[in-house]
Amino acid sequence: MADDVRLADRNEIELLMKRYCLYFDTKHPDSLAALFTTDARIDYGPEVEPILGRDKLRTMVANGAATRFESTNHQICNEIVIFESDERAHGTSHLYAWHKYFGSDVIGHLWGGYRYQFRKVDDEWLISDLKLFASGTEDFHRSQMHDFRKILES
Amino acid sequence: MADDVRLADRNEIELLMKRYCLYFDTKHPDSLAALFTTDARIDYGPEVEPILGRDKLRTMVANGAATRFESTNHQICNEIVIFESDERAHGTSHLYAWHKYFGSDVIGHLWGGYRYQFRKVDDEWLISDLKLFASGTEDFHRSQMHDFRKILES
Amino acid sequence: MADDVRLADRNEIELLMKRYCLYFDTKHPDSLAALFTTDARIDYGPEVEPILGRDKLRTMVANGAATRFESTNHQICNEIVIFESDERAHGTSHLYAWHKYFGSDVIGHLWGGYRYQFRKVDDEWLISDLKLFASGTEDFHRSQMHDFRKILES
Repeated sequence: MADDVRLADRNEIELLMKRYCLYFDTKHPDSLAALFTTDARIDYGPEVEPILGRDKLRTMVANGAATRFESTNHQICNEIVIFESDERAHGTSHLYAWHKYFGSDVIGHLWGGYRYQFRKVDDEWLISDLKLFASGTEDFHRSQMHDFRKILES
Repeated sequence: MADDVRLADRNEIELLMKRYCLYFDTKHPDSLAALFTTDARIDYGPEVEPILGRDKLRTMVANGAATRFESTNHQICNEIVIFESDERAHGTSHLYAWHKYFGSDVIGHLWGGYRYQFRKVDDEWLISDLKLFASGTEDFHRSQMHDFRKILES
Repeated sequence: MADDVRLADRNEIELLMKRYCLYFDTKHPDSLAALFTTDARIDYGPEVEPILGRDKLRTMVANGAATRFESTNHQICNEIVIFESDERAHGTSHLYAWHKYFGSDVIGHLWGGYRYQFRKVDDEWLISDLKLFASGTEDFHRSQMHDFRKILES
């Protein structure tokens, strides 16, 4: 089985998931955007429309870091990667996210996860699709979220 | 050392730990039960008796999903796997678990971990023993738990 | 790329991060200290001075386990390891840490991360430098912490 678990590919893909968190929380929108394909689709909805493309994601994350989130802490775990081909994979992770907003002492909490699609472009794995799901939130800046219980059916 | 770390086996075993969380939280008791040996022992006690066998686990998890837990979110980390032989391993993880109960707005929190035993059956690793430990809880539906500080001595 | 991801080394190093948590929370200061080089530098500041050396770390952790922390639960994730040479690496993780203090029912929470340096000594990877960062805390026993948003610049 050693071959088909593709450990090196799996490691590279899990690092995309982890770096997304690190770059978000350290406010490096350029490094974060570089983890995605140019045509990536990012769905933080359903209250907001999906973000289409790496450039729009960079702008949105930069704006959030400057105007909404004084500090954040994104903790993912349970990373699961499933290969569809040599150049396609998808996966899931669980997520806890901590949010300190500018001008407020309230902390926003989110318990949920991400569903990912990955694509190999020029010999490098990238995130081509990211969708956020919630099991629940507390004092969070959004009230309607994709239901984590349905993450495998989406 | 590359040989004896058994990276492919380790990856397969860690996926058992992660899929347990994913299938619990997405309410897939059949998929969850299939991660265990037919004779697995699952100890969520000491307030409740250990569950003996994959079939009883499936029933209990299905009942919990239908009648007690409206939504859950199980986050494991610090996965450690130690091989005893080609077909036996044991390990630990830390755990944070979030529980939304039916008919209540109270959220139950648990900080702790799992102790696992694994067995290779027909060339596939499975969980043969699972024991839940807690460091602490808040608004949780159980008051007495195995003490996480003793997880290495159990 | 399979070669330069060094999966076996990466696994060995990630186990250092994970065992630090497990040994802290199960109160095994000797096992915890053995994860570090004899001359390791551990910075839990800036309110306290860095700890210099494995022996001082062992003493401090043992004292904390005996007099301050009745129970703790350290959950790391987003483990990232970057190799500098065959014998040097550095990395980061995110962290949530739960603290129950002796003589109090208050729980101290910390959301943040660690920055690590690793060194291979006698064919074994060890932690040579550990620095704790926080995004935020609640009821924690320290008020000033290194800023997690700066973890990549330190």
